[in-house]
Amino acid sequence: MQEVYDYIDAHLEDALRDLVRLCHQPSISAQGVGIEETAQLVADMLRGCKIKAQILPGAGGPPVVYGELAGDSPYTLLFYNHYDVQPPEPLEEWTSPPFEPTISDGILRARGVADNKGNIVARLYAIKAYQEIKGRLPISIKFCIEGEEEIGSPHLAAFVELNRSLLKADACIWEGGDINWQGQPVINFGVKGLLYVEMVARGAVRDVHSSLATVVPNPAWRLIWALNSLKDSDEKILIPGFYDAVRLPSPQEVEAIRAIPPEDEKLKESLGLESFLLGLSGFDFGSRHLFEPTCNICGLTSGYGGGGSKTVLPCLARAKVDFRLVPDQRPEDILVKLRRHLDENGFPDIDIINLEGENPARTPLDSPFGQVVCQTAKEVYGLDPVIEPTMAATGPMSLFVDTLGIPTVCMGFEYPNNRAHAPDENIRIDDFKKGAKHVSAVFDRLGKRA
Amino acid sequence: MQEVYDYIDAHLEDALRDLVRLCHQPSISAQGVGIEETAQLVADMLRGCKIKAQILPGAGGPPVVYGELAGDSPYTLLFYNHYDVQPPEPLEEWTSPPFEPTISDGILRARGVADNKGNIVARLYAIKAYQEIKGRLPISIKFCIEGEEEIGSPHLAAFVELNRSLLKADACIWEGGDINWQGQPVINFGVKGLLYVEMVARGAVRDVHSSLATVVPNPAWRLIWALNSLKDSDEKILIPGFYDAVRLPSPQEVEAIRAIPPEDEKLKESLGLESFLLGLSGFDFGSRHLFEPTCNICGLTSGYGGGGSKTVLPCLARAKVDFRLVPDQRPEDILVKLRRHLDENGFPDIDIINLEGENPARTPLDSPFGQVVCQTAKEVYGLDPVIEPTMAATGPMSLFVDTLGIPTVCMGFEYPNNRAHAPDENIRIDDFKKGAKHVSAVFDRLGKRA
Repeated sequence: MQEVYDYIDAHLEDALRDLVRLCHQPSISAQGVGIEETAQLVADMLRGCKIKAQILPGAGGPPVVYGELAGDSPYTLLFYNHYDVQPPEPLEEWTSPPFEPTISDGILRARGVADNKGNIVARLYAIKAYQEIKGRLPISIKFCIEGEEEIGSPHLAAFVELNRSLLKADACIWEGGDINWQGQPVINFGVKGLLYVEMVARGAVRDVHSSLATVVPNPAWRLIWALNSLKDSDEKILIPGFYDAVRLPSPQEVEAIRAIPPEDEKLKESLGLESFLLGLSGFDFGSRHLFEPTCNICGLTSGYGGGGSKTVLPCLARAKVDFRLVPDQRPEDILVKLRRHLDENGFPDIDIINLEGENPARTPLDSPFGQVVCQTAKEVYGLDPVIEPTMAATGPMSLFVDTLGIPTVCMGFEYPNNRAHAPDENIRIDDFKKGAKHVSAVFDRLGKRA
Repeated sequence: MQEVYDYIDAHLEDALRDLVRLCHQPSISAQGVGIEETAQLVADMLRGCKIKAQILPGAGGPPVVYGELAGDSPYTLLFYNHYDVQPPEPLEEWTSPPFEPTISDGILRARGVADNKGNIVARLYAIKAYQEIKGRLPISIKFCIEGEEEIGSPHLAAFVELNRSLLKADACIWEGGDINWQGQPVINFGVKGLLYVEMVARGAVRDVHSSLATVVPNPAWRLIWALNSLKDSDEKILIPGFYDAVRLPSPQEVEAIRAIPPEDEKLKESLGLESFLLGLSGFDFGSRHLFEPTCNICGLTSGYGGGGSKTVLPCLARAKVDFRLVPDQRPEDILVKLRRHLDENGFPDIDIINLEGENPARTPLDSPFGQVVCQTAKEVYGLDPVIEPTMAATGPMSLFVDTLGIPTVCMGFEYPNNRAHAPDENIRIDDFKKGAKHVSAVFDRLGKRA
């Protein structure tokens, strides 16, 4: 493989040129900006690696870029990626404009470069290098690159149902993955699920003078009392049955958490916190972070939020609430339990708007494919990989793991300061090279096993 | 007095011309718009009634228009008014532009016409009529017209202290007052006090991805739990000692509440409510509305409030909270108790920003001056006045009642649909005329007693 790695080192400039070109093209799904153009560009890039690329209709959503490349073996590795990016706002907080990629001090800065255009290009870069040095790939490859991941992939389930046979594969490499503070690659074997709701309380037909607070119901109070009933200050979620489907971590999963190098102190420092919730650290921190579901307030809106004082009694109060779910919780089940809890606690007046739902997903830690990814990571990085049974975040992985039955792991090269979803999103160029080498090593090892 | 009343009827056009001129001049204290110009215009209007008017420095705030007019008796009646108005926003909800007064169907619509430029002009209109028919006024008059009432009169206490002798008077007519749904004039003998605070909870140094809700403290939850500790769903305020200084209503005050014609059904309907808090109606409604303090949420702000879902864990959460206070509660005492309550309930991290504080004030219902206002109201309106021991709202009345020792009552002519503080603020022109007549009747009656 040294020749392939040398090729990757020697052709960095070419790969960066492709990455700059892709990041220069806005593709903001939340705002409907540049979606078709980006799908076209990505399909062209796939074709540049001899991949048979098609732009498929997205089952009502943005187009999905689908690609196939036959190799020496029918064993098929599928890449799941997305070509859309988060909105770049607030623009004034960027050091350079978000869609004008800038390279300096070994850093490439642009919206989407970490999440996850860098991964798309690194994977193509690995294919190109392998082809140039060894000719045909030892295994077959598929790509499924969707265009609405950043808005919760609302049409991907339908797309997957409609394209079951096209997406058939033996293993799947997910979107991306992390490098930790010590430079170790992090391999994730799952994602959490999500239920995202808006809770709405209504009062009078219009805002009224706050002197009427003696007699007029205030929806902000209703919402506060309702939210207070959901979680206590010990962080216990109080919805009856909320924890019923929570699967206990396996001994192997617990072992994996124990083996994760503690990085909570660095995170605490970077967030300016004196302590984490419940004073967590070490194993307890990792265990709670990866295995526990959450009930989180993303936003509160009611009445007057400007400067100074306005004596008003608002007619509307809204909360955005997300629940991260762990196996085997299901968003539709939690939604039913939330509704019942509110009704039974005197809050039938609080409306629930269901905004997003995704299932959690896990691939067993002893999956042979997962072993390959971990072993090759160690070879390329020269460090033990960090093995995490799941991410704390969410993605539509369940469609691949559960619906299609494909073992799936996350691998990538986003270092802790990558600022995905935030201004000055960036990657380190050295990580980008190592990431490509890791992908090529996976090809090689899978070829030997196939 | 009939001749004075006839003069008022005959010269309506002149008075309306003055009122239109005053309402055409913006004077938005919250935005610092038109303050000096309006003070000048009001002083000129006073001078048009032979009142010796001065524009006095406002002790660090906007100028105060002060006026004196000697009459047959040294008995002095002081008018407290304000020349500033609420911001006109939202502009798109006005039928006609807020500072372009419009007359149609017996209605004059403009920002500030009800609160309280209409009262300023009606009082001058009464003086003019009295002067034209009878020559000199039977009593002496003073005016104190401030320019920051709509932002809580933060400099008026200092102004009053600095001008104690100038403001000396035997009685005071407050800003304005109401006409009820049945056309009865409402005479108020007091105001509630106010404590207005902002409660602020802080978390990490920046918003973070909501997958970190397992471990990163969420200030929105902190704020919800803190607010929940302030009031229960039976509307009982839970701050220890909050009710300690609440003075029980006197038998006379209770009797006054019993005599108030019930208008709660009409209010309920106009607000689109199925019921008031605690199912209140009739005497219980009136008693709670006027004698009970409140703890009200004016606004909640945290994290994401836009459309759809954004999975964020906010770094900041803010609540605007106002407490309406009744005798003998004091804002500074409630502030101390609020701080102690939060500290003792595990919320020392919640900051309290003190935005506004005013004392409640009451003039006894048997005050001889109050009797004069009530008796003349009955004569002018041909209906029994409604006597209310206090307004549910707040104003800096305590500076006059308690600091200066002047018996003070509210009288005016704002009908229930006047929309003060809201788009399409308006008065009925017939009410404006009756209001001026009532003022002239008060002059006459006080002259006979003096």
